[in-house]
Amino acid sequence: MSPVNTIPFQLRFGDEDSYGHVNNVRFLQFLEDARVHLMSEPHPGGSFLELIDADHYTLVGRQEIEYRAPLNFSTHPAAVDLWVTAVGGSSFELGYAVRDRVDTAGSTTSAVAATTMVLVSRTTGRPVRLSAAQKGVLLSWQGPDVPFRRARGR
Amino acid sequence: MSPVNTIPFQLRFGDEDSYGHVNNVRFLQFLEDARVHLMSEPHPGGSFLELIDADHYTLVGRQEIEYRAPLNFSTHPAAVDLWVTAVGGSSFELGYAVRDRVDTAGSTTSAVAATTMVLVSRTTGRPVRLSAAQKGVLLSWQGPDVPFRRARGR
Amino acid sequence: MSPVNTIPFQLRFGDEDSYGHVNNVRFLQFLEDARVHLMSEPHPGGSFLELIDADHYTLVGRQEIEYRAPLNFSTHPAAVDLWVTAVGGSSFELGYAVRDRVDTAGSTTSAVAATTMVLVSRTTGRPVRLSAAQKGVLLSWQGPDVPFRRARGR
Amino acid sequence: MSPVNTIPFQLRFGDEDSYGHVNNVRFLQFLEDARVHLMSEPHPGGSFLELIDADHYTLVGRQEIEYRAPLNFSTHPAAVDLWVTAVGGSSFELGYAVRDRVDTAGSTTSAVAATTMVLVSRTTGRPVRLSAAQKGVLLSWQGPDVPFRRARGR
Repeated sequence: MSPVNTIPFQLRFGDEDSYGHVNNVRFLQFLEDARVHLMSEPHPGGSFLELIDADHYTLVGRQEIEYRAPLNFSTHPAAVDLWVTAVGGSSFELGYAVRDRVDTAGSTTSAVAATTMVLVSRTTGRPVRLSAAQKGVLLSWQGPDVPFRRARGR
Repeated sequence: MSPVNTIPFQLRFGDEDSYGHVNNVRFLQFLEDARVHLMSEPHPGGSFLELIDADHYTLVGRQEIEYRAPLNFSTHPAAVDLWVTAVGGSSFELGYAVRDRVDTAGSTTSAVAATTMVLVSRTTGRPVRLSAAQKGVLLSWQGPDVPFRRARGR
Repeated sequence: MSPVNTIPFQLRFGDEDSYGHVNNVRFLQFLEDARVHLMSEPHPGGSFLELIDADHYTLVGRQEIEYRAPLNFSTHPAAVDLWVTAVGGSSFELGYAVRDRVDTAGSTTSAVAATTMVLVSRTTGRPVRLSAAQKGVLLSWQGPDVPFRRARGR
Repeated sequence: MSPVNTIPFQLRFGDEDSYGHVNNVRFLQFLEDARVHLMSEPHPGGSFLELIDADHYTLVGRQEIEYRAPLNFSTHPAAVDLWVTAVGGSSFELGYAVRDRVDTAGSTTSAVAATTMVLVSRTTGRPVRLSAAQKGVLLSWQGPDVPFRRARGR
């Protein structure tokens, strides 16, 4: 079974800016929604969100995105491929590919991206350890490194 | 004269999400607008935008952002510090710090970020060389590397 | 056949504001996207958008919305019911109901709305007459008045 | 002293859509932010927001907007004129004009609008009576009816 999840998402007319392409900022919103959908998916033992203590939540520590091709508005859904690239003590790394259609065949990759998510306590504001059950779900999604081409910014 | 430009920006109520903080995606919009303001600023010989050929435009090739502290909506302006970290043949790197108020004294840095901008021809869609005049403006804004703390995502 | 079209739409996490409900402004974006989907739907003789001359486009002349109940983010789609309430010489009126789920049974109406659309020439910027073919498509969608409850604002 | 308050606001590059004008939906966001700024303004006895009980909040019951002229992105601020058109038992009506620059002289009105705001209890979800102090602030902002030109939608 592939660890990569493909989340279809509906583009909005307003995602395009005056250049006539989906705005660079909106891609990050697509990542966010793909994440929320993945974390809400039923899993034996509960979705990832259901495994998170009421006092805890995940926040975004870092994001990186590389744009590959313009994406245009369409009434047909685009897609985000989403997987886990690393699991640490209180954080994990997600990898993404944004594609212009759900079917892999004939689709164009518009962007690849990585996000560092941190599990945090609402009470203390400090990172907390991922539980064994949480790590189990994350590891079921573990896939390859993100195929970034460009060097890191300074 | 400091190469770092401080661009005040007005927060919007809708920048906050249901967590009660400015949403992680919106920070990228603040970078975009800071960029547009900087590139529109009068310069001897014309603003950076005025130095760009009608057939050319700049696009975002890559972005990286590290979140440091939550930012909250306020009717008082926040600020983006913005400078150049590197100038290449047809691309350049921008560094940013997003701060919760315009005055440096007592302000909190909410995020640091880097963007790779590429000069592209509308006709061919291919990168084109930066002119000497364009490089001159960019070099007048050259400052330090972005003080990222986290390792690069995979 | 009912003249009312139900357009499912995917909510986004960022549609909610810090009050923990979908922000009042976003409802108008849902109307816009429902409109774009309806106008793109295949019709004998072509979609409404295909019936529009390259020099013409539709713009929003007026909007009115009445909020009925809070709408919350969900990974399940919400819906916009959309129909035509009047067809004039160069303009037409759309009616909408925004509901929290696609199935009518058990759904809650979050808002009702009306939009005046005007067909305009790009060249002159002036309204232009709707063609017989365009009116034919619009009349196939004609339904009841919007059930507004509140008096008109001053 | 004029009851009309002029709130400058900073446009964002992303406010424009692929038609190359500020998107019709964004105008409603400008109204929201103008409202928040007005309600936060210092007043003898406290700002309007400070006069609201912790259990109460204002929600938007209804909105109406008429578009007059395209608005384009600029690095110079646009403006919202904002005043009160009516005060009821537990609700009040706001009138707005969105203009392309802060100075009245030479500015173009892009839209006029009206919003019905309702004071509501968080506990019961029901409307609550405006206090005498709240009405006093609102009446200090009372101005003319909104100069709508178009008939009400059906």
